[in-house]
Amino acid sequence: MPRAEIPATDTAYPVDHLNRVKRRHDRGFYDHPTVHALLDAAILCHVAYAIDGQPFCTPTLFWREGNLLYWHGSSASRMLRNLSKGEPACLTVTHLDSLVLARCGFNHSADYRSVMCFGQARLVADPEEKRRALVMMVDRFFPGRTAGLRQSTESEIKATAVIVMEIERASAKIRAKGVADDEEDYALPIHAERLPVRTLIGTPEPCPRRLPGVERGSDLAEYSAGRALEEALAEAHRRAYPG
Amino acid sequence: MPRAEIPATDTAYPVDHLNRVKRRHDRGFYDHPTVHALLDAAILCHVAYAIDGQPFCTPTLFWREGNLLYWHGSSASRMLRNLSKGEPACLTVTHLDSLVLARCGFNHSADYRSVMCFGQARLVADPEEKRRALVMMVDRFFPGRTAGLRQSTESEIKATAVIVMEIERASAKIRAKGVADDEEDYALPIHAERLPVRTLIGTPEPCPRRLPGVERGSDLAEYSAGRALEEALAEAHRRAYPG
Repeated sequence: MPRAEIPATDTAYPVDHLNRVKRRHDRGFYDHPTVHALLDAAILCHVAYAIDGQPFCTPTLFWREGNLLYWHGSSASRMLRNLSKGEPACLTVTHLDSLVLARCGFNHSADYRSVMCFGQARLVADPEEKRRALVMMVDRFFPGRTAGLRQSTESEIKATAVIVMEIERASAKIRAKGVADDEEDYALPIHAERLPVRTLIGTPEPCPRRLPGVERGSDLAEYSAGRALEEALAEAHRRAYPG
Repeated sequence: MPRAEIPATDTAYPVDHLNRVKRRHDRGFYDHPTVHALLDAAILCHVAYAIDGQPFCTPTLFWREGNLLYWHGSSASRMLRNLSKGEPACLTVTHLDSLVLARCGFNHSADYRSVMCFGQARLVADPEEKRRALVMMVDRFFPGRTAGLRQSTESEIKATAVIVMEIERASAKIRAKGVADDEEDYALPIHAERLPVRTLIGTPEPCPRRLPGVERGSDLAEYSAGRALEEALAEAHRRAYPG
């Protein structure tokens, strides 16, 4: 990757033509705390990659560990076959916070927090690195859970491919201002509003076939009904990676 | 685009190597009703495109009209400059329905409904097509709303680029089975559950600067507090495109 126009610092990603937020650049952020917080509040991302010039946009579960992003899939999947050599990819997370109804069409918008991460995705080949990643694939979301599970078999480990990508560039983009009309439009008799949107956890549904006496453990305390999913995910991440 | 392995029908998209669901192919759907319903229940998508081999994954608001997908952005944005010539793109929508905690790591999963659409994205250049698209950019979500708004100015129309892509291939992928453990694992004393996730509309926040006497109209009736966002979006779509 060529040298960045603004070099990396200890607490911010470098900036160049790849990740500089061009449109509405006042909405752009490159610092680690902002970028990482948006990633850690999510479980779902979309990964863009290209095969012979054809772009694919694939949804997948993912997690962050320092400057590394991990995601997984079957060893047979198209994306993983392609990325195993180390291929450029872009992993994006978007939190939708509201729909914004303005007094003219042009100012209709949405509040959102998104982050785009760029790097070279590659297959995790080292057995030890893979074994650890397969633990965190569960424990990053449900800290400590793997210790109480039936152990993974060799064929399960073989059937799961893990992808890792070091974040080389990243940019977060945040709109959080609700209705923002042109000054003269506020004088018009037109209804405008911010319509909040939240992704919430529902009531947990225990497996109907669980054995008598087996109860939900305190390890799942973050995931309580009515809570914002992103809060539970961020809290679990702090517990899985303390300090 | 080369000839499909399974040709299109009146009610289904064609299938070939591009869109055939390979991993867990029992989860794949290609029929118009399934594909369209997943699209119409969403406002946010992620679009993958590539510039000089570098993939980008960009979140954006979008809507569907027949076999056409529309999205927009500033005329200055990188994506739109690139796609204006007619470039291959992939537009993906994902609805996350639950996190699934199983009795082994391998069977941890999520319930989801996703759809990937492939085609050639191009800039809407025809002024009449663009004017109509800018109306539907609002009215698809809030049917009839544009008629009551301050009219768009020429410079606003110029500053908004609209992209259109005909869906040439599409595949939906649905997992909706909750906990699905290996048969022998049900005998283990391990807690397993389905943790539902829903994206809901919150309490509408009227613009603090709205004029006295200006009330929320019945045109926004779909968007009531506590409702699933996807239900409101699907209902509005049916009202905006009846029949």
